[in-house]
Amino acid sequence: MKRPVTLFTAQWADLPFEEVVRLAADWGFDGLEIACKTQHLDVDRALDDDAYLQGRLDLLERHGLKVWALSNHAQGQVVCDDPLDFRHEAIVGPRTWGDGDPEGVRARASEQLKKTARLARRMGVDVVTGFTGSKIWRYIAMYPPVPQTVIDDGYEDFARRWNPIMDVFDAEGVRFALEVHPSEIAYDSYTTRRALDAIDHREAFGLNWDPSHMLWQDIDPANFIVDFADRIYHVDCKDTRIRARDGRVGRLGSHLPWDSPRRGWTFVSAGHGDVPFEDAFRALDAIGYDGPISIEWEDAGMSRYEGAPAALAHVRSLLWDRPQAAFDSVFAQHDE
Amino acid sequence: MKRPVTLFTAQWADLPFEEVVRLAADWGFDGLEIACKTQHLDVDRALDDDAYLQGRLDLLERHGLKVWALSNHAQGQVVCDDPLDFRHEAIVGPRTWGDGDPEGVRARASEQLKKTARLARRMGVDVVTGFTGSKIWRYIAMYPPVPQTVIDDGYEDFARRWNPIMDVFDAEGVRFALEVHPSEIAYDSYTTRRALDAIDHREAFGLNWDPSHMLWQDIDPANFIVDFADRIYHVDCKDTRIRARDGRVGRLGSHLPWDSPRRGWTFVSAGHGDVPFEDAFRALDAIGYDGPISIEWEDAGMSRYEGAPAALAHVRSLLWDRPQAAFDSVFAQHDE
Amino acid sequence: MKRPVTLFTAQWADLPFEEVVRLAADWGFDGLEIACKTQHLDVDRALDDDAYLQGRLDLLERHGLKVWALSNHAQGQVVCDDPLDFRHEAIVGPRTWGDGDPEGVRARASEQLKKTARLARRMGVDVVTGFTGSKIWRYIAMYPPVPQTVIDDGYEDFARRWNPIMDVFDAEGVRFALEVHPSEIAYDSYTTRRALDAIDHREAFGLNWDPSHMLWQDIDPANFIVDFADRIYHVDCKDTRIRARDGRVGRLGSHLPWDSPRRGWTFVSAGHGDVPFEDAFRALDAIGYDGPISIEWEDAGMSRYEGAPAALAHVRSLLWDRPQAAFDSVFAQHDE
Amino acid sequence: MKRPVTLFTAQWADLPFEEVVRLAADWGFDGLEIACKTQHLDVDRALDDDAYLQGRLDLLERHGLKVWALSNHAQGQVVCDDPLDFRHEAIVGPRTWGDGDPEGVRARASEQLKKTARLARRMGVDVVTGFTGSKIWRYIAMYPPVPQTVIDDGYEDFARRWNPIMDVFDAEGVRFALEVHPSEIAYDSYTTRRALDAIDHREAFGLNWDPSHMLWQDIDPANFIVDFADRIYHVDCKDTRIRARDGRVGRLGSHLPWDSPRRGWTFVSAGHGDVPFEDAFRALDAIGYDGPISIEWEDAGMSRYEGAPAALAHVRSLLWDRPQAAFDSVFAQHDE
Amino acid sequence: MKRPVTLFTAQWADLPFEEVVRLAADWGFDGLEIACKTQHLDVDRALDDDAYLQGRLDLLERHGLKVWALSNHAQGQVVCDDPLDFRHEAIVGPRTWGDGDPEGVRARASEQLKKTARLARRMGVDVVTGFTGSKIWRYIAMYPPVPQTVIDDGYEDFARRWNPIMDVFDAEGVRFALEVHPSEIAYDSYTTRRALDAIDHREAFGLNWDPSHMLWQDIDPANFIVDFADRIYHVDCKDTRIRARDGRVGRLGSHLPWDSPRRGWTFVSAGHGDVPFEDAFRALDAIGYDGPISIEWEDAGMSRYEGAPAALAHVRSLLWDRPQAAFDSVFAQHDE
Amino acid sequence: MKRPVTLFTAQWADLPFEEVVRLAADWGFDGLEIACKTQHLDVDRALDDDAYLQGRLDLLERHGLKVWALSNHAQGQVVCDDPLDFRHEAIVGPRTWGDGDPEGVRARASEQLKKTARLARRMGVDVVTGFTGSKIWRYIAMYPPVPQTVIDDGYEDFARRWNPIMDVFDAEGVRFALEVHPSEIAYDSYTTRRALDAIDHREAFGLNWDPSHMLWQDIDPANFIVDFADRIYHVDCKDTRIRARDGRVGRLGSHLPWDSPRRGWTFVSAGHGDVPFEDAFRALDAIGYDGPISIEWEDAGMSRYEGAPAALAHVRSLLWDRPQAAFDSVFAQHDE
Repeated sequence: MKRPVTLFTAQWADLPFEEVVRLAADWGFDGLEIACKTQHLDVDRALDDDAYLQGRLDLLERHGLKVWALSNHAQGQVVCDDPLDFRHEAIVGPRTWGDGDPEGVRARASEQLKKTARLARRMGVDVVTGFTGSKIWRYIAMYPPVPQTVIDDGYEDFARRWNPIMDVFDAEGVRFALEVHPSEIAYDSYTTRRALDAIDHREAFGLNWDPSHMLWQDIDPANFIVDFADRIYHVDCKDTRIRARDGRVGRLGSHLPWDSPRRGWTFVSAGHGDVPFEDAFRALDAIGYDGPISIEWEDAGMSRYEGAPAALAHVRSLLWDRPQAAFDSVFAQHDE
Repeated sequence: MKRPVTLFTAQWADLPFEEVVRLAADWGFDGLEIACKTQHLDVDRALDDDAYLQGRLDLLERHGLKVWALSNHAQGQVVCDDPLDFRHEAIVGPRTWGDGDPEGVRARASEQLKKTARLARRMGVDVVTGFTGSKIWRYIAMYPPVPQTVIDDGYEDFARRWNPIMDVFDAEGVRFALEVHPSEIAYDSYTTRRALDAIDHREAFGLNWDPSHMLWQDIDPANFIVDFADRIYHVDCKDTRIRARDGRVGRLGSHLPWDSPRRGWTFVSAGHGDVPFEDAFRALDAIGYDGPISIEWEDAGMSRYEGAPAALAHVRSLLWDRPQAAFDSVFAQHDE
Repeated sequence: MKRPVTLFTAQWADLPFEEVVRLAADWGFDGLEIACKTQHLDVDRALDDDAYLQGRLDLLERHGLKVWALSNHAQGQVVCDDPLDFRHEAIVGPRTWGDGDPEGVRARASEQLKKTARLARRMGVDVVTGFTGSKIWRYIAMYPPVPQTVIDDGYEDFARRWNPIMDVFDAEGVRFALEVHPSEIAYDSYTTRRALDAIDHREAFGLNWDPSHMLWQDIDPANFIVDFADRIYHVDCKDTRIRARDGRVGRLGSHLPWDSPRRGWTFVSAGHGDVPFEDAFRALDAIGYDGPISIEWEDAGMSRYEGAPAALAHVRSLLWDRPQAAFDSVFAQHDE
Repeated sequence: MKRPVTLFTAQWADLPFEEVVRLAADWGFDGLEIACKTQHLDVDRALDDDAYLQGRLDLLERHGLKVWALSNHAQGQVVCDDPLDFRHEAIVGPRTWGDGDPEGVRARASEQLKKTARLARRMGVDVVTGFTGSKIWRYIAMYPPVPQTVIDDGYEDFARRWNPIMDVFDAEGVRFALEVHPSEIAYDSYTTRRALDAIDHREAFGLNWDPSHMLWQDIDPANFIVDFADRIYHVDCKDTRIRARDGRVGRLGSHLPWDSPRRGWTFVSAGHGDVPFEDAFRALDAIGYDGPISIEWEDAGMSRYEGAPAALAHVRSLLWDRPQAAFDSVFAQHDE
Repeated sequence: MKRPVTLFTAQWADLPFEEVVRLAADWGFDGLEIACKTQHLDVDRALDDDAYLQGRLDLLERHGLKVWALSNHAQGQVVCDDPLDFRHEAIVGPRTWGDGDPEGVRARASEQLKKTARLARRMGVDVVTGFTGSKIWRYIAMYPPVPQTVIDDGYEDFARRWNPIMDVFDAEGVRFALEVHPSEIAYDSYTTRRALDAIDHREAFGLNWDPSHMLWQDIDPANFIVDFADRIYHVDCKDTRIRARDGRVGRLGSHLPWDSPRRGWTFVSAGHGDVPFEDAFRALDAIGYDGPISIEWEDAGMSRYEGAPAALAHVRSLLWDRPQAAFDSVFAQHDE
Repeated sequence: MKRPVTLFTAQWADLPFEEVVRLAADWGFDGLEIACKTQHLDVDRALDDDAYLQGRLDLLERHGLKVWALSNHAQGQVVCDDPLDFRHEAIVGPRTWGDGDPEGVRARASEQLKKTARLARRMGVDVVTGFTGSKIWRYIAMYPPVPQTVIDDGYEDFARRWNPIMDVFDAEGVRFALEVHPSEIAYDSYTTRRALDAIDHREAFGLNWDPSHMLWQDIDPANFIVDFADRIYHVDCKDTRIRARDGRVGRLGSHLPWDSPRRGWTFVSAGHGDVPFEDAFRALDAIGYDGPISIEWEDAGMSRYEGAPAALAHVRSLLWDRPQAAFDSVFAQHDE
């Protein structure tokens, strides 16, 4: 299907919003997936200050860009994460962090998410993408031993904290799309299944398909789409390049920087890695996904000013119209 | 080698012939592999009505299209198939089907094939592509048990029924090119070998190389070319995309429609699948094949109006001139 | 789990039943999965003639053999198969074949299956293993084109014909276990899913796990166990050896005999092929399967007198007790 | 080389030491790698109470068991881990945990490690195996973003805390062998390299080769031996079974219990998994390793009473004498 | 098939023949493939001195050992090799080397081969195994460039030198079996094909199947048997262990000694490597090979006194009787 | 990094230099890697005849071409090769070959190399690429047996012969870059390591990275760059296409011509083979390589007039700017 292609703005947060809008439009993107960073789209202000919001909308319209999704990954991350530390303080900003008392931070972040749903509604946007954090992610090594009761509690904690947020989403008619990702309550197929069970498969809570972390975990990104067909609410394209398995590079990244040639995998501009995008896009067609493809550019070895338009070109080359009839339906044509 | 590229018309039989000709010419094809459907090229009429035939030839010439092969897959299918059923009735048309008595149908279809050879000759075409059908294909599961004598008889039945047809081909100086394919007497390497043995390797009977059904059967399409070098009479390019092996998608298609994401493989526009076309075209160079490349478009996920020109572009990108000398022949250059 | 191991008698039908019993007992089998061949266990006679049945039971008891399942593959095959031909006549025997009128044959075979359930009940056996046949198997190549309505009708035909048989099974408290297999209504994962849907997942209808035909179709036999955990009613061990993929041996067997070195795969004594039996047996433990492992010996290159006891030894070497506690539960032991 | 084979006692800590000794001797082990659990070998008491220590030594001698290594994994774990939580409290025991103040716990655990070196010396044992913990393990997902300075500090923290412990090991002439493992400062090849750099490759600090966690991280266990030839101080054999990659089972375990068939890998008795033990043992021969092979039994699907002796048999089957001369040295034999 | 298993004596040439005979008999071998080393079996003397020969035969008979093949690899090597150097001098012995003039050496070696055929005949042995050498092997890198005429000449040189030797073999009714091997005129599939062409497929010249050098060259040893079915005259079992491909170990051995862990592959006792012996033995059954299996022990990491009997046990475990009937021939049993 | 791309002239030696310059400039190359063939760049004359040299330089400048490296592969080849034969005579030319006395040839070739360094200096060129030859390459099969002392001597011979040449390179401030290649002292990873050891890792001696011969030897070209980071002095791009492994095509080329479809691999225009150029170029960025990419065109199936510009286009498509900052460095942007 010839879907719209958007640019995810999180990796461009250091540039003025006007500049990002101009770049995206010049490169030919159809819209933006706007990360709710205060300097780009200040959620509080946008809800309080109509002129501010209208200014943003006018800017987008002037450049012919549309918005199908807002992102608020950072606020979502702290809702379940435990403990909270310097990393969280850096991403949520001082307004949410405040005095840093964990439950206070979590409460303020939850409010931000609810507000993001409200803002989405006002902007005519149906999806908010983001993270959930996780109370049990850090037990991933399973040593020292972790009883299953602790794991169970992690999923329940997630449901306890996210159900009230989802209530607001339901009220606004907006859906949340979790990016399945290490550090989150769901990071692979079976944790996604369990997380959806924990929250009773409520419709407000779905998934933002991003294949980049699936690949190195051996999760097939295309099958994931079919397996969770009714929960694919948004699509982010980030690519991952797997190094040749040499028995020395590891699966876990070895705490090495993203540009180290000794990592077992790293992120690259979409089209330069091993994600089977054609399989995935064909699967999106098959399940009837009707949203945009958003390009999340991350590549430690290529300038974003080359990577973003290249990714756009690559993605567009894989979007086409479906046939109007089965190819073998014409084999029985006879005009006698 | 920079060979001509043709479009196989079978998948376009619902369109007026004039429209197919126009499309092919506009897209830049060099010619057509014409499927002998009555509404496109009525064999009986073309042999009887010179004006009709000349009209066809004029139309092609006006658009600069040439013909290197006619196809008559449907008539060939019923020559050996047993039993004949509603599927055969649908593809052969009422003229051949008549009252549906099997031997009558087979006789009329055999006549059509002979006529196709005669028509080819009159059009200056040297090759007819097609199917043979098979009396033993349906025993493929080998359960309930099938004695080898029954298998042997299947190959003999094929030779008995096709030798008289090949006699006419010989008389006309036209060669038949079987598309190795499930449902046919030859569907993989060893059945091809056995079928050629059965018909005593008579020169009239050769092969239409189509890699699409080889791939999912683990047959290497490029090696196939070298192994059957003296029997490659025509080349059809249809591509097959193999799904990631997940232990659930099966090799046999699961009786699922072509666009199901749960199939283990499906057909796609040439260049979008796993057929090693570059290896194959290099092999065609190596064996000295001097015919055209014909594009058979089938893709349940892409419009034919995008798929056909894209396949043409892909195939053309893999056709080049061979070198005039060995690259290491110049290492001994000295001008002293 | 240390489960009982039985010998499936179908491949020994040429020997007197007494001889099979003696061999199985001597080799150390725990019991038999008895194929209901008239010369081994005549269903009609056993239901009518108490002395005959008691004789069979006494014979088994004398040799210390138990029965957990009866098999009636041949009768089941003709219930849905269409058309019926010389192959079916050979396997069902003259009593069922009669005059060969297809619906008559199907009706008599259905009766035999019901009787087999009754006999099982009388012998204290809870499972009947077997085949279903299929009206649509022969359309597997999907050419000439087959409309989806024809496929749908194939599954419905299966349900229509098997529901009345299953009613008798329900009445007797016996369950039917279909061996997923080419030629049957279910031959891979997605056809199994569809067949179970067609028959409304009624409890009487389950599966006889036999991995041998899964392997060459890329179906993971161990995952199959977990995916269909609640329908694994019996386990047959036949092994398949996959040849090195050389681009010439095909997946479909090339109509070659079982002992040809040019086949892409063939059956071998359990333990000599590529079936991941340890994974499978661990999966059986995981789903709580509590039945026997039955050895179905087929190997075109090894004498059955060597293959059967070797398979028994191999299977026994993979049966062990499960642990009483989690291995990491003892890491927190302190006696202070 | 025909090396001694020992049993690692950590997984048997729920049994009385006398029982473990008896079992190991009965099964034919040559000795024990004793985990310093208080109920098996109380380090404090053994250093203070000669009779107690002698009792332990006598018991071992009576059963013909030798000791080449002591283990103190649990105490090592808390030296660098941060934060400490309920999991650590469970494994270090109340004596080390005390009031739970982290720096106090770390200090007491460090003391225990020094004492373990002293005890090893008194028992004539040259190696202590164990864990180090890690301040940075929990940042493994690298999101929220972690500056490289934080990673650098993690390695420095490790060196700062372990150098004083290693000073005591040096004084006692005992070496520490870190088991490369998730949760530790070194868990793969490049983190091992970096950890050894951080501690200046001091000789006291080496490695306990345990392949089980290497496998699922794509680390080649045999190459690891050759790459770190001068730091392989001890060998633990635990095996890992990798599930068929089906695009759904994940590399990270999905927080699933060890016996779940939906995990991507799990531990199994040595010889039942995918560790290339023969390659590894040949590599040990090549680097001149002259210590024992210790069997660490963990298998969520097999009773330890079957798994331990089976692992011993498997390992013994891979220990043999090296040749006395090159095989091609005799090709030039002539007696003329 | 339960074939005899013999020990190839080349790797035991440093031991007295009596000792080798005793060892082989004690281990349970059925016979010897005797390498014609002067100290074991002096060809000249055996032809001249009846008592000597009878002594050898008596010794063998006393220990119950038979001989199906003599080997004379060393003499064959120098027939085509060019240049001859210190390596050849070492293996052919002073009698053949003489003054070292190349054509003289080649002539004397050719004589030795003819005599070996005569000796074989006198001993009732039908096969002589060996090498041919090659004039073109050393051009394997193809740089500096080598014209095809030079290659052609290499094959012709082989035919010129070996045809006269084969004439004697024909006269004696003995066949020569070339071990396909680097350094020889044939070292893989296509060079074997070309070598057989060069010598006009004369029946005297066949092959000694030894899979060890096929493996690292990607030649499938089992397919090789079927492809050259009519030329498999003898079978040598030497195994090769392929290291995990880590992108650093090379295919060519890196001029490293056989026991280096940095080689990409090395020889190991049969059963410890990657040769698919079961596939191969099944293929031998399929082609009707009726000779012995000879064990050629080479393993730089295992004592020959352990490796040889272990290889014997491994090979015997893969020899079994073939079935008397097709397994599915009994499915149609009915006693009605 | 957007590096310059040059054309290696060795495969164009049959054309006048002016023609090669014109073609390269027209196609858009940035410069040439000039092979010192007398008709292109006569080293002796260029050192003696300023006008000649200036003419060459002017010609290059007029076409906007730069030179970063001279090549003198042929002269280097004979420095260590032994024996020298017709192949060497063909490539070194009559001036070096003279009377063909081996030590004389080697001495003259060594002089040529020293002169090449001097010429490079005068042309402002810092690198000379080339071959070394090898005294031990021809023992690659290791049969007849080769003692390790002979191998050791081969490496020492290399150092003995090349150290004096390197002394001149040092004096001129020019570096030699060996192309790792069969026939040379270093042809894979471990021989490269050993060769560098032999020559004491002197800085003058480094490597010309050419991946084409690494691929079929299983050497990972990208890892090679990182492993030998401080010795990558130049980069040549030649590509290799690996045929599907069918168990018949061999790794060693079977003495078949480069265009045979029965070879296991062959050279192709860069971008048409299996070399992971993107991985390699990313690795070059990671190690800080700052030289050009030189295209060495060899393709037995494609005209060089199509292959060279296609390779240039392919290589350019993989050269891009690196990012100015880490992509995750902007996640902490807040403007509050």
